[in-house]
Amino acid sequence: MKLFLRRLSSLRSTIMPFKQPNRLRKEHAHDLIQNVDNFLFDCDGVIWNWPKPIEGAVEFINKLKALNKKCFFITNNSTKTREMVMELLVKIGILNVTLDDIVCTSWILARYLESINFKDKVYAIGSPAIATELDRANIEHIGIGPNHHEIPDPAKFDYASLVKLDPKVKCVVVGFDHYFNYPKMVVATSYAHKNEDCLFIATNDDAQFPTGTSNIIIPGTGSFVNAMKTAIARNPIILGKPHRTMWEVLEKVHNLKAERSCMVGDRLDTDIAMAANCSLGYSLAVLSGVSDEDLILKYAKSLELGDKNHEEAKCVPDYYAENLGSFEKFIREI
Amino acid sequence: MKLFLRRLSSLRSTIMPFKQPNRLRKEHAHDLIQNVDNFLFDCDGVIWNWPKPIEGAVEFINKLKALNKKCFFITNNSTKTREMVMELLVKIGILNVTLDDIVCTSWILARYLESINFKDKVYAIGSPAIATELDRANIEHIGIGPNHHEIPDPAKFDYASLVKLDPKVKCVVVGFDHYFNYPKMVVATSYAHKNEDCLFIATNDDAQFPTGTSNIIIPGTGSFVNAMKTAIARNPIILGKPHRTMWEVLEKVHNLKAERSCMVGDRLDTDIAMAANCSLGYSLAVLSGVSDEDLILKYAKSLELGDKNHEEAKCVPDYYAENLGSFEKFIREI
Repeated sequence: MKLFLRRLSSLRSTIMPFKQPNRLRKEHAHDLIQNVDNFLFDCDGVIWNWPKPIEGAVEFINKLKALNKKCFFITNNSTKTREMVMELLVKIGILNVTLDDIVCTSWILARYLESINFKDKVYAIGSPAIATELDRANIEHIGIGPNHHEIPDPAKFDYASLVKLDPKVKCVVVGFDHYFNYPKMVVATSYAHKNEDCLFIATNDDAQFPTGTSNIIIPGTGSFVNAMKTAIARNPIILGKPHRTMWEVLEKVHNLKAERSCMVGDRLDTDIAMAANCSLGYSLAVLSGVSDEDLILKYAKSLELGDKNHEEAKCVPDYYAENLGSFEKFIREI
Repeated sequence: MKLFLRRLSSLRSTIMPFKQPNRLRKEHAHDLIQNVDNFLFDCDGVIWNWPKPIEGAVEFINKLKALNKKCFFITNNSTKTREMVMELLVKIGILNVTLDDIVCTSWILARYLESINFKDKVYAIGSPAIATELDRANIEHIGIGPNHHEIPDPAKFDYASLVKLDPKVKCVVVGFDHYFNYPKMVVATSYAHKNEDCLFIATNDDAQFPTGTSNIIIPGTGSFVNAMKTAIARNPIILGKPHRTMWEVLEKVHNLKAERSCMVGDRLDTDIAMAANCSLGYSLAVLSGVSDEDLILKYAKSLELGDKNHEEAKCVPDYYAENLGSFEKFIREI
């Protein structure tokens, strides 16, 4: 499959009509079923808080499929290939999923580099999934994996003398990496700083992973991206939501109509803002992940008060529900 | 010594007169010697690009001392105690230095926590120098040092179950740490996120260390701070330049007059902006560290064009010179 992506998908600065979010009721649920052909689901915090599926998620999605709705799975999580996401969806019981239903940032990264005919080497802060997707696209890369065994004491390491840069590297990628550490930061910065020939790409910029009720917070790729942005002193190209790239791929491949599409997600600043950036007909926030009702009401309130911040306006969903199970209950008898 | 710091020194939003920077000439140098009693020096990139002293720096400072000028050393570098900075200054040949001439961020951190009567525990991302300064102030702390030997494979570590938070921790500090890595990010974020009772303090926010001519770039504390700010979802209290705290301590202890003081530094956004934030009489940028002439001229140009960005206006120095040696040549015969 050959995809043509724009060189750099930028946020469309549409003037948003100011709207108030509705807690999903039965009549809204029925309207949505009537008016939407394509449901786009974020995964973490919406379908699962891994390893647990979220209440009603599987039943809801299978119900939509039974109603002949198209269901797509769009995740900013760069630690998974499309196959890995599919395997998880199948494992929890979602029916009739194909690879074409899935868009994840590791895969989009490879498509993006192909679309600009990138022939050099990538230095990647990221996961094995990124390595897999780059390998499949025959794009050379270095950097992925642990390096803290190679540099046993970073405080005694003479970076200026001992780090050797590979002149073939013309792109620094930042995705999620459990092994993110200072030596990796030095190398990535050295490739990209003051070197406009070197691309600087982030898979996504989510600040955290949803962790349910744990008191441990799991920082996301966005925290690495902002570290690297500070050190490199320029902004990366960001592939994930809320940017348009992932939607553009789906829209093109499946010939989707934006006005008959609904984004379903747990993060207002990525999922819900993406719906706005892509002019999708509808957005539904679920409270089973990162964002909570207070945040939705805070954004809505600031609009009411006439605070015309367009970035905040984009974060107000049309509807919100506890979880996908709440939606499923409303349409069970259809 | 008991110091009273404001709870949170904020940037003073003075209206800046728009000025153009002057490349230092002999008459400027003589005017400065006449009008300035107190010279405040940044260290990295000004006095040394460690381990090398910068041309003329030692001679210049000793000459100032011979002319009865007060010389202070003000460094954002949190990896050094005052004693360590003093030792380096003495080692390269600067005469008559005392501990009171030195302000560094690890020391300011301890003074700040003392000034607010902090009695709980600190989780610190930082260096042994921070540990030393906290120990001296009898402030309990955890976190400093390597932890990548304890968690041999961060990708297989179950953070949500295995990380135990210490309920005594009521402050997260971020300073420079060679061992900065993902497990430390998880712990620091978990203490401070959604917990307004937990202070969040950064020693400084310099994006990089100066590295002279090496093609390896050494990211600074600012890159860690922005990673943590993203994950924690709030702004830290920042102690270092360009914020006022360090100057306020000096001003109080030594009874200095701002209008007869000059900040000398290599970074426009920290050193030169601090001069503006503290209403110091003069600022001198040297080109022996991070910022170059192009950047000075860029900021100056944007002012000329009427771009009234006050943050950028603060970054325009009164004077700039290649290095301290250039200044020294102009005053050799005084």
